[in-house]
Amino acid sequence: MDIIELINKKKNGEKLSQQELQFFVDGVCDGKIKDYQTSSFLMAIFLKGIDFDETYNLTMSMAKSGDVLNLDDLGECLDKHSTGGVSDTTTLVIVPILASLGVKVAKMSGQSLGWTGGTADKMAVFKGYDTQISTKQFKQLIKKNNASIISQSKDFAFADKILYKLRSETGTVENMGLISSSIMSKKIACGAKIILLDVKYGNGAFMKTKQDAVKLAQVMVKIGKRAGQKVCAVISNMNQPLTKYVGDNLEVYSAINVLNGEQNSLATLSKFLCQKALMLAGKCKTENQAQELIKNEINSQRALQKLKQIISAQGGSTECIDNPNILLPKNNCLEIIAQRDGFVTNIDCSLLGYIEKDLQKVDGEFVRQDDCGIVLNKELGDYVKSGEVLLCAYYNKLDNKEEIVYKLNKVYQLGTKIIEQKLIEQVIE
Amino acid sequence: MDIIELINKKKNGEKLSQQELQFFVDGVCDGKIKDYQTSSFLMAIFLKGIDFDETYNLTMSMAKSGDVLNLDDLGECLDKHSTGGVSDTTTLVIVPILASLGVKVAKMSGQSLGWTGGTADKMAVFKGYDTQISTKQFKQLIKKNNASIISQSKDFAFADKILYKLRSETGTVENMGLISSSIMSKKIACGAKIILLDVKYGNGAFMKTKQDAVKLAQVMVKIGKRAGQKVCAVISNMNQPLTKYVGDNLEVYSAINVLNGEQNSLATLSKFLCQKALMLAGKCKTENQAQELIKNEINSQRALQKLKQIISAQGGSTECIDNPNILLPKNNCLEIIAQRDGFVTNIDCSLLGYIEKDLQKVDGEFVRQDDCGIVLNKELGDYVKSGEVLLCAYYNKLDNKEEIVYKLNKVYQLGTKIIEQKLIEQVIE
Repeated sequence: MDIIELINKKKNGEKLSQQELQFFVDGVCDGKIKDYQTSSFLMAIFLKGIDFDETYNLTMSMAKSGDVLNLDDLGECLDKHSTGGVSDTTTLVIVPILASLGVKVAKMSGQSLGWTGGTADKMAVFKGYDTQISTKQFKQLIKKNNASIISQSKDFAFADKILYKLRSETGTVENMGLISSSIMSKKIACGAKIILLDVKYGNGAFMKTKQDAVKLAQVMVKIGKRAGQKVCAVISNMNQPLTKYVGDNLEVYSAINVLNGEQNSLATLSKFLCQKALMLAGKCKTENQAQELIKNEINSQRALQKLKQIISAQGGSTECIDNPNILLPKNNCLEIIAQRDGFVTNIDCSLLGYIEKDLQKVDGEFVRQDDCGIVLNKELGDYVKSGEVLLCAYYNKLDNKEEIVYKLNKVYQLGTKIIEQKLIEQVIE
Repeated sequence: MDIIELINKKKNGEKLSQQELQFFVDGVCDGKIKDYQTSSFLMAIFLKGIDFDETYNLTMSMAKSGDVLNLDDLGECLDKHSTGGVSDTTTLVIVPILASLGVKVAKMSGQSLGWTGGTADKMAVFKGYDTQISTKQFKQLIKKNNASIISQSKDFAFADKILYKLRSETGTVENMGLISSSIMSKKIACGAKIILLDVKYGNGAFMKTKQDAVKLAQVMVKIGKRAGQKVCAVISNMNQPLTKYVGDNLEVYSAINVLNGEQNSLATLSKFLCQKALMLAGKCKTENQAQELIKNEINSQRALQKLKQIISAQGGSTECIDNPNILLPKNNCLEIIAQRDGFVTNIDCSLLGYIEKDLQKVDGEFVRQDDCGIVLNKELGDYVKSGEVLLCAYYNKLDNKEEIVYKLNKVYQLGTKIIEQKLIEQVIE
């Protein structure tokens, strides 16, 4: 077997066997297959497709290509994954609710990617919180507190690390088979047996259409099931940020608000995800019962206390949980004013995400500043009068204020149509 | 402009502009585009295709990416290119005939590729012959003798050197646009204004079908014409070697025989190619007149004398031209015997080419040995009786005689059908 043979098969539209895909993953990991051969193969996969069997086999080979975590001694653990969005901070709401209700949550979190945020970045808002604890400590904490949130080690699904980087530089990102195998290989290697997927679509998500999100969710759920996982995917809307806050401090602030009982889209989606998780974990018999449990956990502040416990256990400061207002920005502010009357017909979420990162640039280089962020005053469908403030951007120092203002002015579109969006579209299970 | 943008355009089936292809070629040459990006782009081209404009623009960018030779002070020079075959030694026949008839021949020759032979390798049979003379000497010799045969410098069409190597390792070889731009970029950079193309098809050629050879020839002729060349392509059959001899010494022997008046397929094709060249070069008005000129040049031995002049001028020994028998093998011989009666229904030319190279291996490594080779006793369509000798393979030392014999036994197929082949199929001009 050699890689040119495999490339030729795929470019001719032939199906690859489990052995052939294993050969590919092995060769990628041990360097016997050169990166220029890998990228040619990836483009052939991109243009000719891989069917479900191939996707599953590729996923499993990738899952076994690095470290594999066995959590079986803890019973069934749950991990949650979002395909990425803006102001998407459901993890900080869900994990304490579920842990408080007795679900064992082994949350592996990722870094920010492109315009989207990452939970690992948000954890740094709790000063001192260690996302890099050992596997042993991780398991001990799950046993003790029912939950731990750590950074996903780069040693899981080693092949994915290589393929992911290559794909981003060779125009082979947006392919169902490659995306689903990338996500699920890591979720299988991480050892959790219950997987809750939040698959987003819209202008702030990697999947632009609902159809693509559903397709991706279906493939991932099918992979998880064949690999012996309990898995469910919620298709949710990312045509506007989940809350009015964008930026690490502000997003943590909004999560704490929800655990304090605030009602908004973040609360609705988080509670829905919890409900699905409780059903998967067998913690209740009906969805109504699940809703009741979740409500009680929030109202009693048990979820908020659980968050404090989880944060403290890994050395994080809980000061902001007791006093969320310290998270609100006190630095400089740029206000964007509506130039006309009209309904909000579009919010460019990925642009918003990119600008939020631009606010943290010093001399053109990204320098993490938790207190930078954007507060939106208007939602999709809101009526705006000329002269009203659409959004405020908070920053410490900007070299290129004009460019930022230019971009900020492009975030909102006003028009005559009233836009309505459904937050939760569908559940794939 | 960046390469990911170009990859995305091509993978979506969009047409690339001259500027975009120039950007690609520049990036390949200066290393700004990584090889894994190039190979992804090549696979997108392979699967989505490039149209004629793109092929032409790619060719011209590649042609200008390295050294460019200007031969204009010599008047119109001719170069000849074969897409490669087995026992394909037309160059050694054509060059002296044309030079003797006053055509200026600037022959850039290549190395053996895969199972096919290369003129540069054959020139080494004339002990002392220097294929690496300077451009100045090359031009002086063309001026003096009307011809010089040199190795094509690797500095022509620099981009092609990189793309060619990548293509061979990434399953992106057999694409009309990529093959034609690879060949024509070099033929444009080399400066000859008259290009004679011998495009072969069959089991010993890179193009397996006549249809593909015609398509390739059409594209190459169109590129050459748009680039201001006089160009013509002959489509010829490579389902059997051009002569009964395979191997450098043996092939030079067969070329000398043709210049001494021998009639065979090599003679027929060489004379036909000369005829087309004379028409392109405006050396005669009718094809009949051309045939007459060629016949006279051979019969008078002027062509043979011209070959001696060309060889001597670059330091090569002409002993074998005066006494060709010294080229016949005197080493060990393996005879392959027919196991049944029947007509020759197939000769596996590429296998034959590979075995000829195997005969020159010492401890598994290729070590050039001019005196190794294969003599075929039977042609396609010949009737063979059980026990007759099909072929003789000459060698000095073989570590793996059994394997060679096994392969040699697969060269001929005998059956009940009489196979007839047309040597020259078509002319594209």
